[in-house]
Amino acid sequence: MTVPTSPGGVTTPRGFRAAGVSARIKASGEPDLALLVSDVPAQAAAVFTTNRVQAAPVLVCKAHLASSRGMARAIIINSGCANACTGDEGLQAARDMAAETARVVGCPPEHVLVASTGVIGVALPLEKIRAGLPIAFRALGADQGPAAARAIMTTDLFPKETAATIAIGAREAAIGGMAKGAGMIEPMLATMLGFVTTDAAVPQRLLDRALREAVDQTFNAITVDGDSSTNDCVLLLANGASGAIVDEAAYGTFVEGLTAVCRELALGIVRGGEGATKLVTVRVTGAASSADARKAAKVIANSLLVKTAIHGGDPNWGRLICAAGRAGVALEPSRAAVTIGSIVLFKDGQPHDEAAPQAAEYLKGKELTVGVDLGSGSAASTVWTCDLSAEYVRINADYRT
Amino acid sequence: MTVPTSPGGVTTPRGFRAAGVSARIKASGEPDLALLVSDVPAQAAAVFTTNRVQAAPVLVCKAHLASSRGMARAIIINSGCANACTGDEGLQAARDMAAETARVVGCPPEHVLVASTGVIGVALPLEKIRAGLPIAFRALGADQGPAAARAIMTTDLFPKETAATIAIGAREAAIGGMAKGAGMIEPMLATMLGFVTTDAAVPQRLLDRALREAVDQTFNAITVDGDSSTNDCVLLLANGASGAIVDEAAYGTFVEGLTAVCRELALGIVRGGEGATKLVTVRVTGAASSADARKAAKVIANSLLVKTAIHGGDPNWGRLICAAGRAGVALEPSRAAVTIGSIVLFKDGQPHDEAAPQAAEYLKGKELTVGVDLGSGSAASTVWTCDLSAEYVRINADYRT
Repeated sequence: MTVPTSPGGVTTPRGFRAAGVSARIKASGEPDLALLVSDVPAQAAAVFTTNRVQAAPVLVCKAHLASSRGMARAIIINSGCANACTGDEGLQAARDMAAETARVVGCPPEHVLVASTGVIGVALPLEKIRAGLPIAFRALGADQGPAAARAIMTTDLFPKETAATIAIGAREAAIGGMAKGAGMIEPMLATMLGFVTTDAAVPQRLLDRALREAVDQTFNAITVDGDSSTNDCVLLLANGASGAIVDEAAYGTFVEGLTAVCRELALGIVRGGEGATKLVTVRVTGAASSADARKAAKVIANSLLVKTAIHGGDPNWGRLICAAGRAGVALEPSRAAVTIGSIVLFKDGQPHDEAAPQAAEYLKGKELTVGVDLGSGSAASTVWTCDLSAEYVRINADYRT
Repeated sequence: MTVPTSPGGVTTPRGFRAAGVSARIKASGEPDLALLVSDVPAQAAAVFTTNRVQAAPVLVCKAHLASSRGMARAIIINSGCANACTGDEGLQAARDMAAETARVVGCPPEHVLVASTGVIGVALPLEKIRAGLPIAFRALGADQGPAAARAIMTTDLFPKETAATIAIGAREAAIGGMAKGAGMIEPMLATMLGFVTTDAAVPQRLLDRALREAVDQTFNAITVDGDSSTNDCVLLLANGASGAIVDEAAYGTFVEGLTAVCRELALGIVRGGEGATKLVTVRVTGAASSADARKAAKVIANSLLVKTAIHGGDPNWGRLICAAGRAGVALEPSRAAVTIGSIVLFKDGQPHDEAAPQAAEYLKGKELTVGVDLGSGSAASTVWTCDLSAEYVRINADYRT
């Protein structure tokens, strides 16, 4: 069951204020510093990148969540610099960024989480963040979610934020979130930066479980370019301000709401993927296992040949089955099938290329579904990707110039 | 030790004749049918794609090599149609293509090997091949290797052929080869189409071993776009016409010569990769195992962010270490290093971004080396790739239109 999402963001749940300001980290003068504060200490859950190279803010978040036993008051986020591969100095800078935020907000340093996004290997301009923090603090407002969503953008074309409301017993709780893309996106058990808030009260054990469950079906099921970053993280804060309490009985409802919010944010990342012109749902069925289905879907979703064919509106279904064939999963060609939209182009080992013109017509759309049945079982998986355009190359060939 | 290669191709070894003609399979009228014939039955070795979806010609080659016990007189190759995912009809068409060739050449059908390359899922135009075969047979010549190398091209910008000479005892033997690229290239224990001939006499056991050894270091160490095809194959024929006999003592020499020829062809495929403007050598050192080194090198070589940065001449070394970090191999950031050319940009956990301008200057070259030391052991691996340009997208978005 899918919970509908509605306009909103991290300040939609009660008891959260946010701000997004310019600290002049970006040469352009665009907003680059976001602050998110809960009125009371919130229960926090997080998932981080599985990249062996982890950015300083990721290491600081892990340490703070361990020493605070999963509590957090504030999240400070900068764009324009990833603070990754920056050595001991970078680690100290991330710690200082949290400590300075704690001083301004008035909470223990370990109740502050930190995130950074931008170029890898460049020193964090701590003085600029120090100067920007009081400005951000003064700008905090329960209506400033959109400003925060804008300040965490790098190559993103538009901010990604959404919210959902769930009923828990007699009470209503809200879940809101924001995320940023737009490149180095194939989260592995984590994602690019995502921030989700809720005013439900959720015990740590259920909060952790819910976040992992939701992320697996959303942020972990998207790809833009197959590159998982050093800074990936999704942070979830639950402050209980609604009075709604999530227990085992309400857990299912909470996960549905959380998944709806995460899915909307994740799809926003793909829609706004670097150079993307189409959102593509890759549906793999007939797999021997869920793991096989996910693996094949990811290989298809990352195939340059699939992504360029879709960009060109070419129903080159051979590239879909070929990509599935190299995924290292069970695939029985004589029972496999390929569909574009609902149009069957290959089935039971036989091509139906005569349907190609119809499929070409379908591919003119902006939101597409392609399907591969592996003919090897009954497991399935859905992954979202975008097309690959010349604009992607332009963006990434010129990123630092 | 590296054996030097020299101009030449599949007809450089004695006792081989070739032809390349137009059978009008390609709408453009460009050459699309190649025939390679050994004067006497040759010992044959082959490696094929590991894709679960295997094209009809791959299946026919496997069957013929089994029933002929590794002997072959002729190879017939068409471009313009892959004959993959074409069902039972496609399989029969590949068999008929071999049988018709056998009739024209005058040998048993199982002494004919077949290869096809082009669009997947389109029926093989057997009548055109039938009509073209006698023309190809009449065109056969010991100087027609270049014509054959041209007839196997699809999106290739130039033909790939080379040769090498090795001394075995008092005799000289030649090894010659041709290959085609230029997309769907990341051979997995096999490659795109490669054809190698030698006039040395090589026992089956040594021929198989030598081919696998050479391919592992050459065709299996390149990538253009990470997609391994349904039609990948390398076929090697040894007809003994030189009188040189390869035994265990001469095996090392033979492998060196064979590897030199395969490397030159493989690098030609990368140089001529779709949209490629630069040949990039990815060197991974300090790995815990050879498998780790190869895995990390492949992930780096396939990273869109690495390939676009190199295209743009941007020494964005963070993308190199980030790609290595997600390869699922041992990597110790505090002991790792990144080099572009011989310029160190990251070492022992510390960035050296001050060297970036020098690295940017180096990246203006056409033949580049980038290195990542994983800081985790002493194993190493070299992989070759190319940059990713907007031209790649254009080629593959418009492939069938």
